Amino acid sequence: MKTTLRKATKQDLQPVLDLVKELALYEKAPQEVTVTLADYETDFENNVFEIILAEQESKIVGIAFYYMAYSTWKGKMLFLEDFVVKEELRGQGIGKLIFRAYLEEARRQNVSIAKWQVLDWNEPAINFYEKYNSTIEKQWFNGKILKKDFDEIIGLM
Amino acid sequence: MKTTLRKATKQDLQPVLDLVKELALYEKAPQEVTVTLADYETDFENNVFEIILAEQESKIVGIAFYYMAYSTWKGKMLFLEDFVVKEELRGQGIGKLIFRAYLEEARRQNVSIAKWQVLDWNEPAINFYEKYNSTIEKQWFNGKILKKDFDEIIGLM
Repeated sequence: MKTTLRKATKQDLQPVLDLVKELALYEKAPQEVTVTLADYETDFENNVFEIILAEQESKIVGIAFYYMAYSTWKGKMLFLEDFVVKEELRGQGIGKLIFRAYLEEARRQNVSIAKWQVLDWNEPAINFYEKYNSTIEKQWFNGKILKKDFDEIIGLM
Repeated sequence: MKTTLRKATKQDLQPVLDLVKELALYEKAPQEVTVTLADYETDFENNVFEIILAEQESKIVGIAFYYMAYSTWKGKMLFLEDFVVKEELRGQGIGKLIFRAYLEEARRQNVSIAKWQVLDWNEPAINFYEKYNSTIEKQWFNGKILKKDFDEIIGLM
């Protein structure tokens, strides 16, 4: 089946959110998706992120969801936050098309680095990235504080 | 000595870059700082990042360098890319002041998550973050492709 690629517009945000929720359900964490369509719409209009869509017969079959990040050493980086192909359509090369389009976008936007994260147990994904001569760094931990804890932690300081 | 905090303006970018370079030298990687002052200026004017400065007697003694990131599940995140106190001034509580100001900024910008990375061997930093009830996640790898390799990798795909 023919796969076509294009940038998402505001009208695509509902089906994108549906896909994100479908995958969260698959990962048994549907309650973790707390973002709303209104958030997506506002933040999209403010150019916080962009999305490349892969479609088959006008249905979204995969996405690359990315935003501009920044390194104090290297300057602009295009950060690939979410890179997904619909479960039942994997193995057809759709991921490769999407990842290539993301790299072309990184080149077009003249960033220093295309960057992303991958879970340490996700061997198929790591193999995919290594096939394309990516550097995989294992020495970084992620730190985070959730909104619900801001007040308490600021109060401690 | 009294430490004051404020947001950086365009005029501060040169001393910020000097500090970044000083630290890269300390880390024996001065050649890794390839960003230029012109890059910082353009990207700052385009609101790609913001910086909180800590100063003593009008000299910069530390920075929090952050930008808006985005989670498909949670929405806006404020990503702390660089958080630094001048080597010779550590242990005075300047880091705590800066980190607190960063969290206040995260609260003010109404983001879902304040997020950053820390090297796995950097125990003093990890202890600092854990003191403030941060979650430290160890199961993510970073993937990256550098600009110089975009053409070749796109050609492979």
